[in-house]
Amino acid sequence: MDKKTREQAIKQLELIRRGTAEIIPEDELLRKLERSIKNKKPLNIKLGLDPTAPDIHLGHTVVLNKLRQFQELGHEVRLIIGDFTARIGDPSGKSETRKQLTEEQVRVNARTYQEQIFKILDKSRTTVYFNSEWLSPMNFADVLTLGAKYTVARMMERDDFAKRYKDGLPIGVHEFFYPLMQGYDSVVLESDVELGGTDQKFNLLVGRNLQREYGQEPQIAMMMPILEGIDGVQKMSKSLGNYIGVDEDPNEIFGKTMSIPDELITRYFELVTRVPMDEIKRLDKAMKNGQVNPRDAKMRLARELITMFYDSEQARLAEERFKLVFQKHDIPEDIPEIKVSYREAWLPKLLNDTGLVSSTSDGKRMVKQGAVKINGEKWDNDEAMVSIENGMVIQVGKRKFARLLVEE
Amino acid sequence: MDKKTREQAIKQLELIRRGTAEIIPEDELLRKLERSIKNKKPLNIKLGLDPTAPDIHLGHTVVLNKLRQFQELGHEVRLIIGDFTARIGDPSGKSETRKQLTEEQVRVNARTYQEQIFKILDKSRTTVYFNSEWLSPMNFADVLTLGAKYTVARMMERDDFAKRYKDGLPIGVHEFFYPLMQGYDSVVLESDVELGGTDQKFNLLVGRNLQREYGQEPQIAMMMPILEGIDGVQKMSKSLGNYIGVDEDPNEIFGKTMSIPDELITRYFELVTRVPMDEIKRLDKAMKNGQVNPRDAKMRLARELITMFYDSEQARLAEERFKLVFQKHDIPEDIPEIKVSYREAWLPKLLNDTGLVSSTSDGKRMVKQGAVKINGEKWDNDEAMVSIENGMVIQVGKRKFARLLVEE
Repeated sequence: MDKKTREQAIKQLELIRRGTAEIIPEDELLRKLERSIKNKKPLNIKLGLDPTAPDIHLGHTVVLNKLRQFQELGHEVRLIIGDFTARIGDPSGKSETRKQLTEEQVRVNARTYQEQIFKILDKSRTTVYFNSEWLSPMNFADVLTLGAKYTVARMMERDDFAKRYKDGLPIGVHEFFYPLMQGYDSVVLESDVELGGTDQKFNLLVGRNLQREYGQEPQIAMMMPILEGIDGVQKMSKSLGNYIGVDEDPNEIFGKTMSIPDELITRYFELVTRVPMDEIKRLDKAMKNGQVNPRDAKMRLARELITMFYDSEQARLAEERFKLVFQKHDIPEDIPEIKVSYREAWLPKLLNDTGLVSSTSDGKRMVKQGAVKINGEKWDNDEAMVSIENGMVIQVGKRKFARLLVEE
Repeated sequence: MDKKTREQAIKQLELIRRGTAEIIPEDELLRKLERSIKNKKPLNIKLGLDPTAPDIHLGHTVVLNKLRQFQELGHEVRLIIGDFTARIGDPSGKSETRKQLTEEQVRVNARTYQEQIFKILDKSRTTVYFNSEWLSPMNFADVLTLGAKYTVARMMERDDFAKRYKDGLPIGVHEFFYPLMQGYDSVVLESDVELGGTDQKFNLLVGRNLQREYGQEPQIAMMMPILEGIDGVQKMSKSLGNYIGVDEDPNEIFGKTMSIPDELITRYFELVTRVPMDEIKRLDKAMKNGQVNPRDAKMRLARELITMFYDSEQARLAEERFKLVFQKHDIPEDIPEIKVSYREAWLPKLLNDTGLVSSTSDGKRMVKQGAVKINGEKWDNDEAMVSIENGMVIQVGKRKFARLLVEE
């Protein structure tokens, strides 16, 4: 290997290393990169997708951004829609989390997925596969051959299997085949690298081992951290409501981004934007020195996200609107969020439900006194019905605020 | 249920209970028998056969005799040739015991099996199935559905899995499907009863549980004891050489039967003949009282076996020959067996190899002195070549004997 190729490979590796939780093993990845550069042959980077939940949020983009980075370095992405698993569902019928989908639902979900994914990925360097293509035709003998490649003891090393076994909770025999199916996808696609969250480590290593069993060079398992939600506490997820969806309205994205805790700003920049690392480091230092107000850093973060998912013009408009509504009306950035389950409400009742007043009568009084504002605009009719929008800010007096989150 | 039906069912159950190690559960079997009598509908009795070892010996006939008994009570036997498993072999390629067979080999073995089996079973009440018929066409989704019916924890209750797991020995994921395949055979055939040795208990219960999962009335698991070999110590098996094959020459069967230890006589009568139990009990008592010589009981046993596998005329001829060779020439019944690996040998060498003389020269001397007999006939040519027959008895002087067993 000549010196220049090696230098190029090391440079690629440095970029790729950004934000990763673990690369197994890094030296093999370097060798693959060197060979790829030398032979002008892009690496195949694999990501498996579960078509049961087609709404992509910022948590997913941690991995997608890493794929995008590979593409910018000249490599190819292979997305696997796990339609086979989704279509058969959970054969035990016991798990609520793995519902059986019809072929039509899977197709629709896969399309929704792709629309969102290509906000981040380069379409020209991405191929989409459905794993039913090679899993459906497998017969009993093929399945046994696949099963023979792995021992029960190694399966039981998977954290959730080990825990359930220890706790006396049932593990269906068929469940051992989920990691094997995912691993077999890597064999079929001859993946060089597979990406996933840290919670996918076991499955990614199964792929690596299966490739070895089938006489292939094993893939690199690359794990990305799990992103915290905008609450800064729990993993970002749709069911917890602490997410920013890539398909959300730009104003929504802007508002939600402004609500994240300051400690997460740098982490979000690193994991979900394409801002170069040295720039992020400078920004982080400046915030710590007090040279940059975290609010301004969050505005930059919000613009970066909207530019990525829409364009810079949308980002500019969202910022303007945010400033107009919040800053002009002296609404603080950090206000409590209240979940409501309805879309329309009588104003005094809404005030009572959000805890901003002590009773509906108290609410009526505050409205009549002119102490109530919605998104900075005064509402003084105590018989008014309010059409609730997600992110809407309600204010009572000078200091009491609440942001409404509509439960779906 | 009327009283007469119940009495008939109880009578059947008493006969069926003979020699069994365990019936799970007996009360359900009684109900099945009652219903069968009432509806004049025979029960389906299942036995699975492994086509990798087509030579049937007395050990196998313990189960086959039980099936025959069911047939005599009007029930139907369904034999399953496990050709699917045999044809795929051990997919891991690691086990020597489970060799892959070609379709042709399986077909030949199955035919050999049937020829031997119908020495015991009633052909008109027997149906033979090959489980590849329903297992081959199963696809990945079907296999997962099957796997979902059983948990990993329950699989690990199987003795050999538990032991291997504890000892750190590998268990392939595919191995969990062997009991599931066997159990699924019961579902397909809607078996009422499945027979097997006590070592098959786990697999038979899997069939029972799977039928319940598939909404069927579960089969009865009926376990028969494992028969000791003619050495009276180890399980009868071809590899240990302590077997009596149903396809062996009648003289061979007679000789081998005469060599079993006296303690096994009653057990053999109970498990491998159709002699009524009260008669066996009388015989047992008579032997214990000294009224019957065990040698005569063994002759009766040998005749019963040959009559079963051939006919009564063959039994009579074998007895005559035995008496001629052994009793006429004062050959004792109980003589040491010596294994030899060749089919022809120089007499003095053979004598030395069997340990009847101290050297080849010693052997030559004994032959020339006229002290050597084979099957009671004197051999005095010290240059003679001997064509070795299985069971051949060699004698040196008055008291030294050896029976030759040819290793295959």
